[in-house]
Amino acid sequence: MAVLTREAYIERLREQKLNAHMSGEKIDNLVDDPRIRVGINAIGTTFDAANDPDLHDLVTLESPLIHEQINRWTHILEDEQDAVAKAKAMRQVGGAYGCPCLYRCIGNDLINTAWIISYDIDKKYGTNYHQRVIEIVKEVQRKDLVIGGTIVDAKGDRALRPSQQPDPDVYLHVVEKREDGIIVRGGKAHSTAALYTDMLCAVPSYPLRENEKEFALGFFCPLDAEGLTFLCRPATAPLEPLKLENPIARKYGHAEVFVVYDDVFVPWDRVFMCGEYDFTVPLINVFTANHMLSKCGCRSASMELDVGATALIAEVNGAARASHINDYMNEMIMNTEMVYACAMAAAVNGKTHECGVFIPDLVPTSAGKAFAAKKLGEHRYYMQDSAGGLVQTMVDEKDYLSPETGQLMEKYYKAKEGISTEDRVRAFKLVEDLTSSRLAGWYHAMCVSGGGGPQMLKQGIRANYDVEKLKQRAKKIAGIK
Amino acid sequence: MAVLTREAYIERLREQKLNAHMSGEKIDNLVDDPRIRVGINAIGTTFDAANDPDLHDLVTLESPLIHEQINRWTHILEDEQDAVAKAKAMRQVGGAYGCPCLYRCIGNDLINTAWIISYDIDKKYGTNYHQRVIEIVKEVQRKDLVIGGTIVDAKGDRALRPSQQPDPDVYLHVVEKREDGIIVRGGKAHSTAALYTDMLCAVPSYPLRENEKEFALGFFCPLDAEGLTFLCRPATAPLEPLKLENPIARKYGHAEVFVVYDDVFVPWDRVFMCGEYDFTVPLINVFTANHMLSKCGCRSASMELDVGATALIAEVNGAARASHINDYMNEMIMNTEMVYACAMAAAVNGKTHECGVFIPDLVPTSAGKAFAAKKLGEHRYYMQDSAGGLVQTMVDEKDYLSPETGQLMEKYYKAKEGISTEDRVRAFKLVEDLTSSRLAGWYHAMCVSGGGGPQMLKQGIRANYDVEKLKQRAKKIAGIK
Amino acid sequence: MAVLTREAYIERLREQKLNAHMSGEKIDNLVDDPRIRVGINAIGTTFDAANDPDLHDLVTLESPLIHEQINRWTHILEDEQDAVAKAKAMRQVGGAYGCPCLYRCIGNDLINTAWIISYDIDKKYGTNYHQRVIEIVKEVQRKDLVIGGTIVDAKGDRALRPSQQPDPDVYLHVVEKREDGIIVRGGKAHSTAALYTDMLCAVPSYPLRENEKEFALGFFCPLDAEGLTFLCRPATAPLEPLKLENPIARKYGHAEVFVVYDDVFVPWDRVFMCGEYDFTVPLINVFTANHMLSKCGCRSASMELDVGATALIAEVNGAARASHINDYMNEMIMNTEMVYACAMAAAVNGKTHECGVFIPDLVPTSAGKAFAAKKLGEHRYYMQDSAGGLVQTMVDEKDYLSPETGQLMEKYYKAKEGISTEDRVRAFKLVEDLTSSRLAGWYHAMCVSGGGGPQMLKQGIRANYDVEKLKQRAKKIAGIK
Amino acid sequence: MAVLTREAYIERLREQKLNAHMSGEKIDNLVDDPRIRVGINAIGTTFDAANDPDLHDLVTLESPLIHEQINRWTHILEDEQDAVAKAKAMRQVGGAYGCPCLYRCIGNDLINTAWIISYDIDKKYGTNYHQRVIEIVKEVQRKDLVIGGTIVDAKGDRALRPSQQPDPDVYLHVVEKREDGIIVRGGKAHSTAALYTDMLCAVPSYPLRENEKEFALGFFCPLDAEGLTFLCRPATAPLEPLKLENPIARKYGHAEVFVVYDDVFVPWDRVFMCGEYDFTVPLINVFTANHMLSKCGCRSASMELDVGATALIAEVNGAARASHINDYMNEMIMNTEMVYACAMAAAVNGKTHECGVFIPDLVPTSAGKAFAAKKLGEHRYYMQDSAGGLVQTMVDEKDYLSPETGQLMEKYYKAKEGISTEDRVRAFKLVEDLTSSRLAGWYHAMCVSGGGGPQMLKQGIRANYDVEKLKQRAKKIAGIK
Repeated sequence: MAVLTREAYIERLREQKLNAHMSGEKIDNLVDDPRIRVGINAIGTTFDAANDPDLHDLVTLESPLIHEQINRWTHILEDEQDAVAKAKAMRQVGGAYGCPCLYRCIGNDLINTAWIISYDIDKKYGTNYHQRVIEIVKEVQRKDLVIGGTIVDAKGDRALRPSQQPDPDVYLHVVEKREDGIIVRGGKAHSTAALYTDMLCAVPSYPLRENEKEFALGFFCPLDAEGLTFLCRPATAPLEPLKLENPIARKYGHAEVFVVYDDVFVPWDRVFMCGEYDFTVPLINVFTANHMLSKCGCRSASMELDVGATALIAEVNGAARASHINDYMNEMIMNTEMVYACAMAAAVNGKTHECGVFIPDLVPTSAGKAFAAKKLGEHRYYMQDSAGGLVQTMVDEKDYLSPETGQLMEKYYKAKEGISTEDRVRAFKLVEDLTSSRLAGWYHAMCVSGGGGPQMLKQGIRANYDVEKLKQRAKKIAGIK
Repeated sequence: MAVLTREAYIERLREQKLNAHMSGEKIDNLVDDPRIRVGINAIGTTFDAANDPDLHDLVTLESPLIHEQINRWTHILEDEQDAVAKAKAMRQVGGAYGCPCLYRCIGNDLINTAWIISYDIDKKYGTNYHQRVIEIVKEVQRKDLVIGGTIVDAKGDRALRPSQQPDPDVYLHVVEKREDGIIVRGGKAHSTAALYTDMLCAVPSYPLRENEKEFALGFFCPLDAEGLTFLCRPATAPLEPLKLENPIARKYGHAEVFVVYDDVFVPWDRVFMCGEYDFTVPLINVFTANHMLSKCGCRSASMELDVGATALIAEVNGAARASHINDYMNEMIMNTEMVYACAMAAAVNGKTHECGVFIPDLVPTSAGKAFAAKKLGEHRYYMQDSAGGLVQTMVDEKDYLSPETGQLMEKYYKAKEGISTEDRVRAFKLVEDLTSSRLAGWYHAMCVSGGGGPQMLKQGIRANYDVEKLKQRAKKIAGIK
Repeated sequence: MAVLTREAYIERLREQKLNAHMSGEKIDNLVDDPRIRVGINAIGTTFDAANDPDLHDLVTLESPLIHEQINRWTHILEDEQDAVAKAKAMRQVGGAYGCPCLYRCIGNDLINTAWIISYDIDKKYGTNYHQRVIEIVKEVQRKDLVIGGTIVDAKGDRALRPSQQPDPDVYLHVVEKREDGIIVRGGKAHSTAALYTDMLCAVPSYPLRENEKEFALGFFCPLDAEGLTFLCRPATAPLEPLKLENPIARKYGHAEVFVVYDDVFVPWDRVFMCGEYDFTVPLINVFTANHMLSKCGCRSASMELDVGATALIAEVNGAARASHINDYMNEMIMNTEMVYACAMAAAVNGKTHECGVFIPDLVPTSAGKAFAAKKLGEHRYYMQDSAGGLVQTMVDEKDYLSPETGQLMEKYYKAKEGISTEDRVRAFKLVEDLTSSRLAGWYHAMCVSGGGGPQMLKQGIRANYDVEKLKQRAKKIAGIK
Repeated sequence: MAVLTREAYIERLREQKLNAHMSGEKIDNLVDDPRIRVGINAIGTTFDAANDPDLHDLVTLESPLIHEQINRWTHILEDEQDAVAKAKAMRQVGGAYGCPCLYRCIGNDLINTAWIISYDIDKKYGTNYHQRVIEIVKEVQRKDLVIGGTIVDAKGDRALRPSQQPDPDVYLHVVEKREDGIIVRGGKAHSTAALYTDMLCAVPSYPLRENEKEFALGFFCPLDAEGLTFLCRPATAPLEPLKLENPIARKYGHAEVFVVYDDVFVPWDRVFMCGEYDFTVPLINVFTANHMLSKCGCRSASMELDVGATALIAEVNGAARASHINDYMNEMIMNTEMVYACAMAAAVNGKTHECGVFIPDLVPTSAGKAFAAKKLGEHRYYMQDSAGGLVQTMVDEKDYLSPETGQLMEKYYKAKEGISTEDRVRAFKLVEDLTSSRLAGWYHAMCVSGGGGPQMLKQGIRANYDVEKLKQRAKKIAGIK
């Protein structure tokens, strides 16, 4: 059955054996550790949505590849409508469950990328990568697999190229090519959530040159492969059960993972790039085009949650008609819709690749994601100025729930008639979780840096933009021959 | 023949008789007056484009109504693709000719609006407005007519409603209903370019109440109707021929027009709303949905011209590699693409009305237009900091062209080897025209206020946005029942 | 001896008996609790500075009141130079120790306010408040006391005035006037750090009317007064000792406190306002004038630390010459200096009150504090885009320090030759603490809301600004009589 | 008599003989040409102010040099109070008369610069420049002279240094040193207003190296010196008399001037730098420190006029209580006060040079001027959204004043009861002049570029800022040794 439930996904994880460390200790149990569980919950929403009557039609479809119902995040984009649906699914699922990062986009972005690039490499070099990718995608669809991205290399000294690093392992590379497969070595940073996925995918993150062929590597790999080590940072989840506080963080979040490939063997049938350095730029572009589309979807979900939270906090404070708060909300609505609009534009202006797969336009979504990153601080400011100081000065729920002090809080946190103090406390705890909790700290950092920081996005846009044409037009208009 | 040339449009204007005043004098000759001609040129680009091999396919199509080739600006939108094409045509034509305001969008926005609203009114009230609109649209398509919008009422005291004004004429209203038609009176402000169009269209600009039926008026009207007076402000065109200066203003611009309807008779077959006050809000929404789509198209053309002009000025100054100038360009590119993205989103998220006409989503484009208005000052700042002080301190072309002083300018305005001083002068004159000439002053003001200022757009977005749903979601996430 | 050491301050706290609760438990030991100790450390910097050769001259002076050396934070401002020194001390001490909030400003702001307002009330009503304040200030100076502000009332329903609240206790008020003193009741929110001070000061936070005299209350009060309860939220300190992480949070932070006055007796010689509702606006203005001066001082310390941290992270990443990072630094420098400039302007444009005390101008510093609040998000964005994703994805120091995984981190977090991996880790942990840790979340929220959010500051500025004069000038220039 | 009247200044100009060209023609009569007269008017305000009872005390003082009353713009700064007064005079005089650019600041900035730098050069090289400057300043004070700055060289190719230019004349340089003086050649751009001053001053604008000694030149020079040519661009004044329109532009503005020194002889007693290339950076810093102080003064006058104009337009539209307009005004007030605050900070943090002259701190005012440049577009946007479309669509005053059409305008531009239509027209014409007239175009461009564009200012700040100290502090806080 190709559309799994959250439970099935978790059961599969329970079987997983891997070499993982977190906060100085080895991880034995992925599934029940509160520092990891919130991440599993987050990915779990993509399974829930597939089985949720409200979201089912958006999130599942019949695969033209395996002719079964599949989860949209395992689908290869066929046309503009698929691109729209992908962004829409990110927004709707994120919004419905209040989950800031579903994570699963990256797997979809990677299989689309692998599909296209393997086709192009085969065409140029006569390799047979593409068929392997097709088989893997079929497997992903049939088993409803979650794919973990290991993309950004450790990078070492940023002023040096991969080939110039004193320690070559700071970029993942081939150390041996064997008849049955390859041996790879190196470290991949920022592999968020890779710990609780079903299969890893590695691709290069840097435009390589001819003398850097060994770094041009694309492959899939199981998590229990020998030589793999996962170094993990806990999710920003609260460590004890809470009733009012951290309404988001106690459900969702992600562990951050550094993946070390230490002479890991990858059989040839899992490899789709090995040495074709001239396809690193196209690969990065296709991946970015897909990933930024996803990001504009999920960001708009987060951004519109800010609108809802502001409306709520204004209500519980008795300030629903304050003109400045309403103006803040208007600004946030416009920001949200502009970010989402970028995804729509990427769909409309996308192109169908020769192999039949649809590639969204990377320019508007790169702009949209950079815009969202810049607007984060503004949204936070709007929410905090709307809410007031209690966002940070309200005491713990333990005090509120304690018999000794609870009565005092009940009395003194009471605001508007008809709204219970508890509901007001809950509203503040939501705004706190969106603006200043550890979850917020982590999430905002990810919104700036994840998938490439603003400066990197600007460079990507520029490399894909015809400024020369605009300059020539300006000349013509100015009367310059 | 349904696709006219610029020349045919101008010939038709030459026949026009009207009662018009400008700068204290009566206007006799529309076509040859330099203060008006630039406006005719601007509209002329929509005819040129239809006959331009590069743009023909985008700008013309076969009308499903009259089954002839027509100009896209006379077309009734049928689907998402039409909406995309409408925005794209605004961007491409504006960009190709360097024309900041084609003006003709408003006619298209109005016929689409009239088409839909007349259908809805007929449905509710059993009137027969819709068929009249169909006939008028057929005429517009067959003759390739340019329609002048008379929309925004004079408004009087803003703190009072139409029905409360001491002088009711500050809102256009019916003064008499006759068997053959109606007599209307009132003043319509901001009727940019209406002077050199082929037919006026009047619609209400204010959400009316039951006791304000007389102001609920929609009709078409010839420009030579008795009782019509046009009070005009000259376009910002230079009054004498120039060779280097004002490369845009000497070609394009618009006269601003205040239209006085002083007991003008409108026959019933030109009327499509008369008293149906409850359709003023829908009418304003449909018009806004169309007009903001158009604006996001034309604004992106202007905004990308800023990119080209900055690239050019950097080149002629020898500063093409300055990192701050390149960053300015990156920011302007992202701004441009976000504005255009809003038009794409409006197309993707638009809906087909019961009568078969496509209505774009007004939310993203209203946000996009407000965003563009806000970014104008930033673009100007970027261009001026990239160019330097010569934008304003460079002497007149008369000095440059004078034998006495020209040699000195040739010597002292010379910058980079290989770029002629004249070309550098031309580049500066372009930046001046984009940032600080009278044209720029007019255009930027229009970009802020035209079609509704940012505050009005925010209110429109808010009225069409489901904040309550977002608040309920926030409650659910916070754990509030 | 009037200038104490940190140790003496802590010893005094150790004696303190009070009724305080935190996270559902009663607090027994203020001084050794890690959730409180960081706050004591923060205040401790003001004692350290007084004994630090580098800062001594700035932070101590001879009191014209008691003719002994005193700590500047117990001084009553005499002139412009004192105001400059006050802001400078905030910046220099915050900067030297990397402490985001010294807290002690508020005590200085309050004694200056009490001094002036008691004088004015006496003058109008013939009371004898002023002499009492003088005596208290002498005590504060002699003993180098730390004063805790209890200012912002619980407020209840924001749409209702104090006199309209169903529960009057949401605003602190007099419940009985006795011969020897008054009995007060009510809750004061946002009393940051009040827990570990030597004396409380209460003032009104709301402009009161004649029928609200009972809320017009200013007094000083010991922390062990019967009826006082402190409800506390822990500081954002790490709960276990750390070596690399949270370099700031493991040293500095503040507990947040809600103070309940439950029929607390205050003897008359500690009261300086009781019923004089017409002095609440002047009181708020004087307090704001002082407090915003302090804030512009400490904010500029935080903001310039962002510059230093960005320079450091760029260095350890090998990106010190990246033009975008340098531009970010330039922007942050300009922001910093503009905020500090507001403090200087407040000094230059301040006035000497009739009683001889100097009052800074509240307008520039209110603008400066609101500006700083808005720029927080921008600084965070700049730092994160300069640093990259490791700000959030770097594993815990436990992994780095563990023998099993430490070697891997040593290898993979190594960047620039000549900079140790440990130093790079430390640099990232600093940026994390400034941008996305719990400390950052708390601190940024306080920067927005503390002392009044931006909207409240705008209203305060407007109430103290002569817009009418500017309108009259505009009329004259426009030629309007 | 050392404090002249406007009339005396104009009479002196009438005697002036010079070789000047404008718009392709030779200029014969400076004083009565409308394209120049507005500039003379602008400078005239500095004489008016000295004789205006309201401003006299601020604008005049007794010279410690000649012991007569002098105009403040001829004064050498002695202390912080002088610096405050200089900025305050810029703001008050600009504000009182509604004059956007008094121009005369530059003369004061230059004599202060020449005074200090000549002292330093003498000290190092044993020259006798300083005494010459003292004599010139005495003359300037006694005769109340207006000094024209010729500072920015033509610059040629920006990618080349002065010594590398194919044509050396694009930087002013010495061509011959004679016993009695020097012969200089080269072109100085952006010499705004220099045409109607009493004496020129030339200084270098570029940090020079040892092999570029010939460009290191500082001197004073009469306007009728042989070999001088003034190439002028007309002020943006209306060319015919107006009654309602352009209330500012018809009074004030400036001609832009390019000054060609074509083998001009300058006697030694007017020279204060000749070859001392190592003093170009100090000279630029001292000049910038003075000029940015002036700019923060005059900008705050312009910025607060925007506040007044917005209040006025809201009143005449009947929108005085609109919350968004009031928020715009609050933002503009805060911007204004922050810019002015930078001038105050420059005064407080300035230093007294060894020669006894006070030098303001260049850092805050450079930041303030760059901030003002960035906020220009925002202010324009605020004013236009507050006013509405009539800013650009209102017809000419000729139509309003014409008997034929005036009645219609009177009827249709009428808004709020109690406010005459004429006053409303005047209010709109003021907003137009501030936002979108040619004056506005010129003025805004000057606000961005004049005295150095934002990027140049950032570089100046950075060169005078101790980032290394901040980095070391960050290291210490992070625990890095």
